[in-house]
Amino acid sequence: MTDESRSRAQEITQRAIASFDDCASERLMTIMKSLTYHLHQFAKEVSLTTEEWMAGIDFLMATGKISSDKRNEFILLSDLLGLSSLQVAINERADEATESTVLGPFFVEGAKVFQNGADISNGAQGEATYVSITISDSAGEAISGVAVDVWGADADGFYDVQYKGDKLFNRGRFLSDDEGKVSFWSILPVAYPVPSDGPGGELLRATSRSNMRPAHIHFALAKEGFRQVVTHLFVDGDPYLGRDAVFGERDSLVCKFHRASGDETATEAKLQTSHYEIQHNFTMARI
Amino acid sequence: MTDESRSRAQEITQRAIASFDDCASERLMTIMKSLTYHLHQFAKEVSLTTEEWMAGIDFLMATGKISSDKRNEFILLSDLLGLSSLQVAINERADEATESTVLGPFFVEGAKVFQNGADISNGAQGEATYVSITISDSAGEAISGVAVDVWGADADGFYDVQYKGDKLFNRGRFLSDDEGKVSFWSILPVAYPVPSDGPGGELLRATSRSNMRPAHIHFALAKEGFRQVVTHLFVDGDPYLGRDAVFGERDSLVCKFHRASGDETATEAKLQTSHYEIQHNFTMARI
Repeated sequence: MTDESRSRAQEITQRAIASFDDCASERLMTIMKSLTYHLHQFAKEVSLTTEEWMAGIDFLMATGKISSDKRNEFILLSDLLGLSSLQVAINERADEATESTVLGPFFVEGAKVFQNGADISNGAQGEATYVSITISDSAGEAISGVAVDVWGADADGFYDVQYKGDKLFNRGRFLSDDEGKVSFWSILPVAYPVPSDGPGGELLRATSRSNMRPAHIHFALAKEGFRQVVTHLFVDGDPYLGRDAVFGERDSLVCKFHRASGDETATEAKLQTSHYEIQHNFTMARI
Repeated sequence: MTDESRSRAQEITQRAIASFDDCASERLMTIMKSLTYHLHQFAKEVSLTTEEWMAGIDFLMATGKISSDKRNEFILLSDLLGLSSLQVAINERADEATESTVLGPFFVEGAKVFQNGADISNGAQGEATYVSITISDSAGEAISGVAVDVWGADADGFYDVQYKGDKLFNRGRFLSDDEGKVSFWSILPVAYPVPSDGPGGELLRATSRSNMRPAHIHFALAKEGFRQVVTHLFVDGDPYLGRDAVFGERDSLVCKFHRASGDETATEAKLQTSHYEIQHNFTMARI
């Protein structure tokens, strides 16, 4: 940059930041000024060329184009740049609540409600896994009536919404019972690559980054009066733990998925054959 | 932020930046590491909440949704945040070439080619304006065969592509003649608001920012062997000069649009009636 172009760049940055001076919301003013400042710092630091700027615009246009009600590629980008995980860390409280991690791009509002003990796999390929969780507050008291959203990929590493058609699988909503318990049949999660058919995958390929996420099941727990918990349970022993493409692992969220040999005397057919079992206690903090 | 959450945030930032360590392209590595660093700096500086992060994702999703082959809302956002104008300033060279400014969201590839002297307005409302330009190199030598793209809004402040339907107006491509000249009939540009029906307009309203751009005609000049010039000519005296919503003004690009009373003896009918005239010399730098 020449001196003249540097001083013009400086002037443009100042004008762009000052353009938010009249914003009525102080919080929005703070956010927009900081965003503008850091965006400009980035462009100046790398001396962004016109071609690179245009490539960035094209990348965002492609991200918008592949996104839909069932696929949020902007969340994937946020995940891949570590922004989602950072945002979770920034908002972590110093309490006993279960740690949160990234929401991911495949959460769907209004999932089907199941009764405890139901099988949510809906025909998805994968090894049968019985999940039982309990939810309590910081004092250990069971919390009933918690809405628990659960979603996960199939044995091929794809979520229902990644397939053509409208069939949903391995996704559901439960309510915790009087003992704070939720239980259901799902399938054993496997490590899988993040979607590679869009700009997110293109970014990973162009930068020689791993596209793998360690195996996990998604949970979102919500009840009025308690802080929401959006998290995963990871499978202990997964080779991708510690190098999650979206930086989502937390030690406290790694669980043992036990292999259970069938119990021939069990009343439920599924329990009679070999399957996996997992048990986990979630803690929610009152607000 | 608690100490623990601060140290976790720090770790996530480091991991996200380090994830680009294996990028084969050194330039792309530099860009992605800087982008990640500054994006994280922003989120930490404002302690971005989960709701604010989700609002940002929703905003980008809406930006993608309203964008199309004929409308690039991401360019508008880049314009409104001053990034487009900054990028132009960063890439400005210390030579005699005509100053550049923002491309804007309404450039269309492959515009119709016209002969010199043609009327490109195609029925668009506005006061008839005769534009004549000459293109020369730094030594003052005329440059022939320069492809000159021209586009502008109508008297209501809208570009052709902002209307429903496929009709294009006030847009065309010319080739400079042996004397480096291009001339055409267009319409007098007026100050206009940037599009208000999408996320860009929403951002301006939410932050009480002006949505006005001073009147201008867009030009893009290209010829092999010369550095491209993407610029505007602004109308001298426009009240919005100095407070352009996209920070695009340059003193050297402000031109006098003269009112010409009709010349009854002229051979061309348009010249016989009252109209505006503008003359400008563009300079292109050899590369």
